[in-house]
Amino acid sequence: MSDDGGQELGVTKSKEYETGEWYAEVVQKAGLASYGPDRMGGFIITRPRGYALWEALKSELDERFKTTGVDNAYFPLFIPESFLEREKDVVEGFNPEVAWVTHGGEEELEERLAVRPTSESIIAPYIAQWVRSYRDLPMRLNQWCSVVRWEATETKPFFRTKEFLWQEGHTAHADDASAWAETLMRLDQYANLYEEMLAMPALRGAKPEHDKFPGADTTTTIETLMPDGKSVQAATSHHLGTSFGEAFEITYTDENEGESVCHTTSWGLSWRALGALIMTHSDDQGLVLPPAVAPEQVVIVPIWHADDREEILSYADDLAEGLRNAGVRVELDDRDERNPGFKFNEWELKGVPLRLEVGPNELESETATAVHRPDGESVSIDAEGIATSVENHLDQIHEKLYDAASTNLTENVREADSRGEILGTIGQHGGYVAAPWCGDEACETKIKDEIAAEVVAVPLDTPVDEYASGRAIHEVTGDICALCDDAAETTAYFARTY
Amino acid sequence: MSDDGGQELGVTKSKEYETGEWYAEVVQKAGLASYGPDRMGGFIITRPRGYALWEALKSELDERFKTTGVDNAYFPLFIPESFLEREKDVVEGFNPEVAWVTHGGEEELEERLAVRPTSESIIAPYIAQWVRSYRDLPMRLNQWCSVVRWEATETKPFFRTKEFLWQEGHTAHADDASAWAETLMRLDQYANLYEEMLAMPALRGAKPEHDKFPGADTTTTIETLMPDGKSVQAATSHHLGTSFGEAFEITYTDENEGESVCHTTSWGLSWRALGALIMTHSDDQGLVLPPAVAPEQVVIVPIWHADDREEILSYADDLAEGLRNAGVRVELDDRDERNPGFKFNEWELKGVPLRLEVGPNELESETATAVHRPDGESVSIDAEGIATSVENHLDQIHEKLYDAASTNLTENVREADSRGEILGTIGQHGGYVAAPWCGDEACETKIKDEIAAEVVAVPLDTPVDEYASGRAIHEVTGDICALCDDAAETTAYFARTY
Repeated sequence: MSDDGGQELGVTKSKEYETGEWYAEVVQKAGLASYGPDRMGGFIITRPRGYALWEALKSELDERFKTTGVDNAYFPLFIPESFLEREKDVVEGFNPEVAWVTHGGEEELEERLAVRPTSESIIAPYIAQWVRSYRDLPMRLNQWCSVVRWEATETKPFFRTKEFLWQEGHTAHADDASAWAETLMRLDQYANLYEEMLAMPALRGAKPEHDKFPGADTTTTIETLMPDGKSVQAATSHHLGTSFGEAFEITYTDENEGESVCHTTSWGLSWRALGALIMTHSDDQGLVLPPAVAPEQVVIVPIWHADDREEILSYADDLAEGLRNAGVRVELDDRDERNPGFKFNEWELKGVPLRLEVGPNELESETATAVHRPDGESVSIDAEGIATSVENHLDQIHEKLYDAASTNLTENVREADSRGEILGTIGQHGGYVAAPWCGDEACETKIKDEIAAEVVAVPLDTPVDEYASGRAIHEVTGDICALCDDAAETTAYFARTY
Repeated sequence: MSDDGGQELGVTKSKEYETGEWYAEVVQKAGLASYGPDRMGGFIITRPRGYALWEALKSELDERFKTTGVDNAYFPLFIPESFLEREKDVVEGFNPEVAWVTHGGEEELEERLAVRPTSESIIAPYIAQWVRSYRDLPMRLNQWCSVVRWEATETKPFFRTKEFLWQEGHTAHADDASAWAETLMRLDQYANLYEEMLAMPALRGAKPEHDKFPGADTTTTIETLMPDGKSVQAATSHHLGTSFGEAFEITYTDENEGESVCHTTSWGLSWRALGALIMTHSDDQGLVLPPAVAPEQVVIVPIWHADDREEILSYADDLAEGLRNAGVRVELDDRDERNPGFKFNEWELKGVPLRLEVGPNELESETATAVHRPDGESVSIDAEGIATSVENHLDQIHEKLYDAASTNLTENVREADSRGEILGTIGQHGGYVAAPWCGDEACETKIKDEIAAEVVAVPLDTPVDEYASGRAIHEVTGDICALCDDAAETTAYFARTY
């Protein structure tokens, strides 16, 4: 990819000490994204190397959706204000923070149009038209699109932008069991995607009542823990019960010719996944990518002198071809105008998981020196059977990244049973603090007001055995809420968030 | 796909006599699209069967772009009004018919944001930032997105909608020759896509001066002829010269350390391609799809009686598996609640290219009866080696469709050299009428005012030998404009349009 402007210098900030500035630098210098124009705070430009990551996730997830009964569709970008207001039947005090289109050409519109913040209210009326009998169920639609939410908070590329790319799935079912199975299957697919593509473990749970998707019966969530101790809501899957079915009259004729209301779900994963990816694995040298999403999994850097250039390049070319034929995404960096040291730095900045160095020694011994991006581990591998060795090293790199993230998660779930202990533990260590909780928002506020941590998840009270991915969050013992004298109803996972 | 509501009845209108109503019926009854809500005239809902066609085109074209140096990216949905106005440097009297966002949440915005009608004005400033030296060139970016154009004309799904899906490519080059080669390569890819995926020949040419993309040096176009004699602008590729380079200061340092302005191009193909596809091949039984884009290339309809159901289903299943293993997209319609006649009609309506009927006779003789969707041709084929036969039949079906469209095009290019003859010929036959033309818009008006035909293309005056796809439109002889006494500068292809 040719758009490598702006990276003459490497990353200058420290991930540990200046996390925010470091993140912004990695995003820009690795060529992932640029900030929008001055007049458009909150918007970003997704550059080819950033978009390629999104395409990798999208392609994999889309495939998984399609093999599990989902059809893609496309609904309009705009939603009439009256449609959004219809959600008031579902949600009291619904007040969307959206971008409003008021004029088309020179004309003022009779009714304002919202740029979609999510599409339940325009998709539901069509599902209501299309579903007639139980034979049409389950109906599963998904769209890949961008949505706009007019939040005034500071921009953080991929984590927090006024416009973002995502997919939104919308399904209708004959009964509660089918809708629940759908909700959990999608959550499971998200958790698997994080594990297998992004080398990140996810905690699975539910959002507390006051933080559910408006109108949802249950909002299930996966949460990922960043190295700085903050939690990221990595994807959500909503069991909507019959509230949308009733508000939008989504009904079907059952096998006994009776009329029943559909149970619906919706579920989404956004490019925030890329933010979590970058934040989790990258370091002070720049981006670190797991092999499954890396546009280039291997870069070969030939090291030549004036007299052996042709010979070494030809050897490197053979290695590259062998890898390419085995399906490895490989780049041979044969630029004359850059020296090997420059190339090492540049490909480290760009996050390529495995570097193969090929110089006179390697040529003579018919080997290559393989260097792992995450930790610099360096190993000599034979040219013969190189594709197998490389695939093996790529697997090792995935494991290294996953293990580090997994250890971070395991070590940073702590328990507490008083306000002081919750505050102290999060203040000192970050991470998750599990505490018995009455379920009342007022008790969450006692923490939130002090350190901006919140309840990011509670245990899912549905059996999830058949959906084994991710780690179910566990119940703590304790009958009394850690924050008041009421009985504990559940376990709250408190954390700071992105 | 389960969304087959609304097709209990087949198509009732005649393609020949009620083309518009017929088209609307096919689109809806084949489950391709629905009209938007009442308050959103001009918008459509793209249903799974329609979206699958777009995905097939997108996937193929995206692959072709990627193997020819294009990187995907994503730019914001909104463009500040002042950015659009900057195009006034390029185009006098630029007055965009766009949707305007004036409010974000409760706040009125300081500057209105246009929902992108096309993205030159927001992409160009970034290309200007990213291009530094000749080494960065050519830079080729593409995005798949939706755009909005606030036209007040009547909606025709896929042909004319206020929001539509498309791709827009934007490239920067060191010199004119490189930009020209790019412009023609993309036009060629579009023409190939029409031929190979949609079984439609395309005429290649240029738009007349007054109908170019604003600011373009040359707008090249491919035009396809519909059976009703109207032309469709099937895709365009713009050679923008240095006008955008100058307006947006896209410059680079050349090999001699001098500063030069980039030559740029842009090119796009929209879901109008689906409109042209539906209009060209379909008939009074419904949709007809070329095998390359059909979600199901083959449907197997088993014909059983009470006593041989299991045996026939098992035989049909084996055939389906054989085809599936050979990479054929096949559907086995084993529904118990529908009889074979109903199934035939339904799959004809949905446009499946090849039907395999499997009943007691076929079981006994180890054959299947293959029926071509376009013309009903019926042939017995052996179960042994069925994948090869089926692939052969699918090729034949593609050829049949292509040949019919090609014959229509060949037979409907006529010449004329006076106003009366142009009007008479288009009035009687439709199609294209080639006439010597001075190049003046006023002369086009003499036709347009009378029969709503216009100059859809003129010959490209650049050698296009190396881009052989599509048919170059030819020059007619004649030194004097058919519509005034001035000298003829070129050949105008007049046609009615969609």
